[in-house]
Amino acid sequence: MLIIGEKINSTRKSIDRAVRSRDVESIREVVLNQVNAGADMLDVNCGTLDAQDEPVAMEWLVKTVQETADVPLCIDSANYKALAAGLGVHRGKAMINSISGETERYKNVLPLVKEYGASVVALCMDDKGIPANLNQALEVGTRLVGNLLDAGVPVDDIYFDPLVRSVATNPETVVETLRLMEEISDRFSGLHFVSGLSNVSFGLPERRHLNRAYVVLSMASGLDAVIVDPLDSTLMALVYATEALLNKDQFCMQYIRCYREGKLKA
Amino acid sequence: MLIIGEKINSTRKSIDRAVRSRDVESIREVVLNQVNAGADMLDVNCGTLDAQDEPVAMEWLVKTVQETADVPLCIDSANYKALAAGLGVHRGKAMINSISGETERYKNVLPLVKEYGASVVALCMDDKGIPANLNQALEVGTRLVGNLLDAGVPVDDIYFDPLVRSVATNPETVVETLRLMEEISDRFSGLHFVSGLSNVSFGLPERRHLNRAYVVLSMASGLDAVIVDPLDSTLMALVYATEALLNKDQFCMQYIRCYREGKLKA
Repeated sequence: MLIIGEKINSTRKSIDRAVRSRDVESIREVVLNQVNAGADMLDVNCGTLDAQDEPVAMEWLVKTVQETADVPLCIDSANYKALAAGLGVHRGKAMINSISGETERYKNVLPLVKEYGASVVALCMDDKGIPANLNQALEVGTRLVGNLLDAGVPVDDIYFDPLVRSVATNPETVVETLRLMEEISDRFSGLHFVSGLSNVSFGLPERRHLNRAYVVLSMASGLDAVIVDPLDSTLMALVYATEALLNKDQFCMQYIRCYREGKLKA
Repeated sequence: MLIIGEKINSTRKSIDRAVRSRDVESIREVVLNQVNAGADMLDVNCGTLDAQDEPVAMEWLVKTVQETADVPLCIDSANYKALAAGLGVHRGKAMINSISGETERYKNVLPLVKEYGASVVALCMDDKGIPANLNQALEVGTRLVGNLLDAGVPVDDIYFDPLVRSVATNPETVVETLRLMEEISDRFSGLHFVSGLSNVSFGLPERRHLNRAYVVLSMASGLDAVIVDPLDSTLMALVYATEALLNKDQFCMQYIRCYREGKLKA
């Protein structure tokens, strides 16, 4: 399971402040906390800045994070110039967050994926928005992944995001998302699946329980990467436990190592 | 989801003591704690007593529990005389824990199921023990459920227990158990599925994470009853969350009610 730490995101006020004031120490603390908690990769997003300031800030952010820890980054922006700026200074193999079936976005982001040999989050949507039902999602997802493969992106570099909605307003969304992952997985062997956790529980109280249950359910249907707060130790323990149960953790070695490192106390 | 509270079991020393000394107050406390925490049914087991004492103790236990709370019981014994004694004084519809494909057990328990119109936990095993692989489990389970139906037990009264093993010694067990439930479910529409949680994590540290993940995974494959400690509020919150995600909690009403009752604080 690829754990992508979500905390370096300027929608959080402390990160917005740190990015604007180029406060290295504040960023470093969030980097180290996440890496020590088990993050394999860190998402970096400074999308609250103005469009003309974001690329420079992203460049600073990528450098600052990678000077702190030798960790690959998931460069996260709706602004492809910010993606390019971040990729330009990134060391090692980056992930781009994200491409989609939207014409403009696809056209602008695909060259970056190719140029930098990056992996990429592929959102299951197109110019019509997020598909309204499972059949449409299958169509949109199949077309998007097919196009990426045709363009020469290796399947191992594609992280398909099924874009789960809020279960409060879309009661069928999780059941359909699980089916979508299973069917897309049947069509494209070797494809990865990624999801964020905030959407599914939107509008409901005590959201962490829903987010945790959603991760476990999704892992059974193929999820192998997740964008989360790695400091949520109950969730992380559940992820390690689920890998052991699904026979993706040989001899439960990862689970036992986490226990020895004190990571299962939650 | 049918929540069956597991705590009135004489393998726990305090319960063994309470049963032997006919300590009504101690039993009542465990009854009320479980019911207030959300148990729909309580398992009662006094199998640590000698075979000749167990039936009388079971009769006392069933009466004592039902005088405390108006809750149906899951009468749990390997001793069919204790089952009969408990059923004889039980008010309302009881559950019997358990029948199996073992010749002796099947022969002794089936008449009780029929006489008392009880529901019954059907363990996926026969005279050869617990099946060694998925194919054998499918055979054993299909035969057992088929026999119960042929004997006139309504499908809605059968709770099939797939008998998960420890993932520490059987890495494939959960994946196979999920498949078993799905395949048996395809064969017998309306069948229920139940599981205890202690086996899956046996031999591993910090077992609660594994138990919790197992419940969530199993619910996606059809589990609709579980024998648990309802005082594990993290687990219970996860169960309610999973029902909401799987669209088995209309408009998330149960989830929101639990929130209002302060049951999602874990």
